[in-house]
Amino acid sequence: MTTETRVARRARLMGPNVPTFYAEPVHLVRGLGAEVWDAGGRGYIDCYNNVPHVGHCHPRVVDAMARQSALLNTHTRYLHDGVLEYIEALTARLGHGISQAIMVCTGSEANDIALRMAQAVTGKTGIIATDNTYHGNTSAVSVLSTRRPPIGGYPAHVRLVPAPEALHVPDGGVRFAADVARAIAELKAAGHGFSGLMLCPYFANEGFPVMAPGFLGETALVVKAAGGLLIADEVQPGFGRLGSHFWGHDWIGIAPDVVTVGKPMANGYPVGAVLARPDVMAAFRAAFGYFNTFGGNPVAAAAALAVLQVIDDEGLVENAALVGAHCLERMAALRHPLLADVRGKGLFFGAEFVLDAEMTPASAFVTELVERMKGKGILMGKIGRHGNILKMRPPMVMSVAQADRVMDALEAVLAETPMP
Amino acid sequence: MTTETRVARRARLMGPNVPTFYAEPVHLVRGLGAEVWDAGGRGYIDCYNNVPHVGHCHPRVVDAMARQSALLNTHTRYLHDGVLEYIEALTARLGHGISQAIMVCTGSEANDIALRMAQAVTGKTGIIATDNTYHGNTSAVSVLSTRRPPIGGYPAHVRLVPAPEALHVPDGGVRFAADVARAIAELKAAGHGFSGLMLCPYFANEGFPVMAPGFLGETALVVKAAGGLLIADEVQPGFGRLGSHFWGHDWIGIAPDVVTVGKPMANGYPVGAVLARPDVMAAFRAAFGYFNTFGGNPVAAAAALAVLQVIDDEGLVENAALVGAHCLERMAALRHPLLADVRGKGLFFGAEFVLDAEMTPASAFVTELVERMKGKGILMGKIGRHGNILKMRPPMVMSVAQADRVMDALEAVLAETPMP
Repeated sequence: MTTETRVARRARLMGPNVPTFYAEPVHLVRGLGAEVWDAGGRGYIDCYNNVPHVGHCHPRVVDAMARQSALLNTHTRYLHDGVLEYIEALTARLGHGISQAIMVCTGSEANDIALRMAQAVTGKTGIIATDNTYHGNTSAVSVLSTRRPPIGGYPAHVRLVPAPEALHVPDGGVRFAADVARAIAELKAAGHGFSGLMLCPYFANEGFPVMAPGFLGETALVVKAAGGLLIADEVQPGFGRLGSHFWGHDWIGIAPDVVTVGKPMANGYPVGAVLARPDVMAAFRAAFGYFNTFGGNPVAAAAALAVLQVIDDEGLVENAALVGAHCLERMAALRHPLLADVRGKGLFFGAEFVLDAEMTPASAFVTELVERMKGKGILMGKIGRHGNILKMRPPMVMSVAQADRVMDALEAVLAETPMP
Repeated sequence: MTTETRVARRARLMGPNVPTFYAEPVHLVRGLGAEVWDAGGRGYIDCYNNVPHVGHCHPRVVDAMARQSALLNTHTRYLHDGVLEYIEALTARLGHGISQAIMVCTGSEANDIALRMAQAVTGKTGIIATDNTYHGNTSAVSVLSTRRPPIGGYPAHVRLVPAPEALHVPDGGVRFAADVARAIAELKAAGHGFSGLMLCPYFANEGFPVMAPGFLGETALVVKAAGGLLIADEVQPGFGRLGSHFWGHDWIGIAPDVVTVGKPMANGYPVGAVLARPDVMAAFRAAFGYFNTFGGNPVAAAAALAVLQVIDDEGLVENAALVGAHCLERMAALRHPLLADVRGKGLFFGAEFVLDAEMTPASAFVTELVERMKGKGILMGKIGRHGNILKMRPPMVMSVAQADRVMDALEAVLAETPMP
């Protein structure tokens, strides 16, 4: 079967407008560590995927999942030690009084619950996010990130504040805090009240703008003073990706009331969680009934626990710091007329390209870079409001040698790609 | 560790009000086929769980999942044959022009999308369900089944119609259709318009009242005439559980616009799907962006495909018909002063108990039966508005011999349990 008929079959079975990467999508069949291979045997270094957090097909995770699947897989209305061991191990890595969890299947489900936790604690519904983010795909959370007006109109209880932009805001978070304060006032004036602020503490989808720890200090004060919850969506920065800290909120220096996690938790097995203080959890459990059939089942717990153990045993947080620093160093040495900025932390970094002194985004150029990197055997993405930021977010096992291959390819592609 | 400290640890890590079964929850550690074992080595016949559809820890499903996990697990923005093969195999079992799918992780996610499909097709938001159902745990679908007022009040676009009651409605569905028509009129009058009716075609959570095929014929006409979508939630009756048909909607004789599936799809691996006609899918894809990271990943597809193959190769639909008929026959021979009705289809059946001629539900008595059945090594549940219906919904591999052990135990328990 050729790629073309596979694409046609896909459209026939999945419908129109189902997203793919690349003009001609990659057909992957095998993965190991930070590398994947397509059906033609061609290898790629994976600089995109954060789901295979400890590396594609990590044998310890595969083994944990296979063993538990052969033994028992039920749900948490029966007792089982797996989910308890996992929640104990995960909450041990959290401060701020956060010691309890609801296990779910996706980050979307986690954020959907987090919204209700904020409602339960405050008795209000008003919620704030940035205007260039993504917190998931359920009806309730997708209105925080949709570009299209939902049927029935935008819900009145949602306010989106301007996302920080990397190349424009060295103000230490003053404007962001003021925007949040204004949104809170609007929600209160409109009668919704204020339940919380949901954000990624690394502002990953916003293009991880340059910001020092402390950037959200004033914002956190504004949120607490207004009685709302601070919800940290750690789906992208969590589990050590930033190298210096296990959590994005600890790097940027805020104390969230609720933390949500998803994608990298179990290396691909569908697992997510909402983590909260006992007082927040009790308020949620008093206000809402909730049960998740697959959430925290013995196999999910085994896979997720194996991921935590591998992160420790293989020193992957340290690896993210080391390899990430090396990548940033090599990126800082790149020279290109359109290159406006290189930035990042740990194994989450990128480069922003602009066309001119007015900082016009070089969006098409970055799309072309991504395609040409694929041609060199490197998978990466783009991000930011205008898609003009190369995004690199590889599995945490990427080595310095692999990073060098990525950087060599990037140098070559920058030299070869025609200027727009 | 004793059960007591395990329960305490659970409350410490998971918070209050997290549902368990039984006064003293079972601590399961192993499962195979239709049986499970607790930490003390005690065996139980599982008459409750529909997630392990082809039997606990079925080796072919475990093997398919383990093999694919060791090979590749990514997402559908790259091409992969697994998800296409699965959707092709699954939609081949559906009529009514339904040929496309969105793969997700849970039935809740599937129903959450189905609500948006109805909105996309109609441009309206009004939605109808029964007043004693369950369609999932996201914010959007949980308002269809909550017993507690959501923060901010019940959403005005939802109307719940009275669920059919087994012991009161041999009217062929006339009243139900009239209730739906009235709800549609109310939604239109209130300005929400009508987007669809979501229901389980077996009315599983409603206590699977006795109804003949055709019961929903008039209702379907009412829904179509009003321009709304008929959404069949097949999480419980689907995948052959009813014995005579692969789908509940084909048994009851309606042509749904959208079908949602979840729990039994992949024997415990978190998989769900929304199945729709191409016109419905296109409307959804035009109105909403949607991507699900874990949905339809290669491992999910492999596990789900193995389940379909096992259903065929082991003749499990036929087994459900055979063993289910045997169970019903034995239940029909039960004699007990409080036994008001035995009913069901395939491997989804139960018994309703009442206290008196006024049909007062014998709820506490049924709770006691469930506890005593556990004492005899049989796990089962209860259902219905008043929890006075014993629910039996075992894995599809239950044998006649196992069914006889269940029925022998039930006879003994009925004889031994003190009358209320």
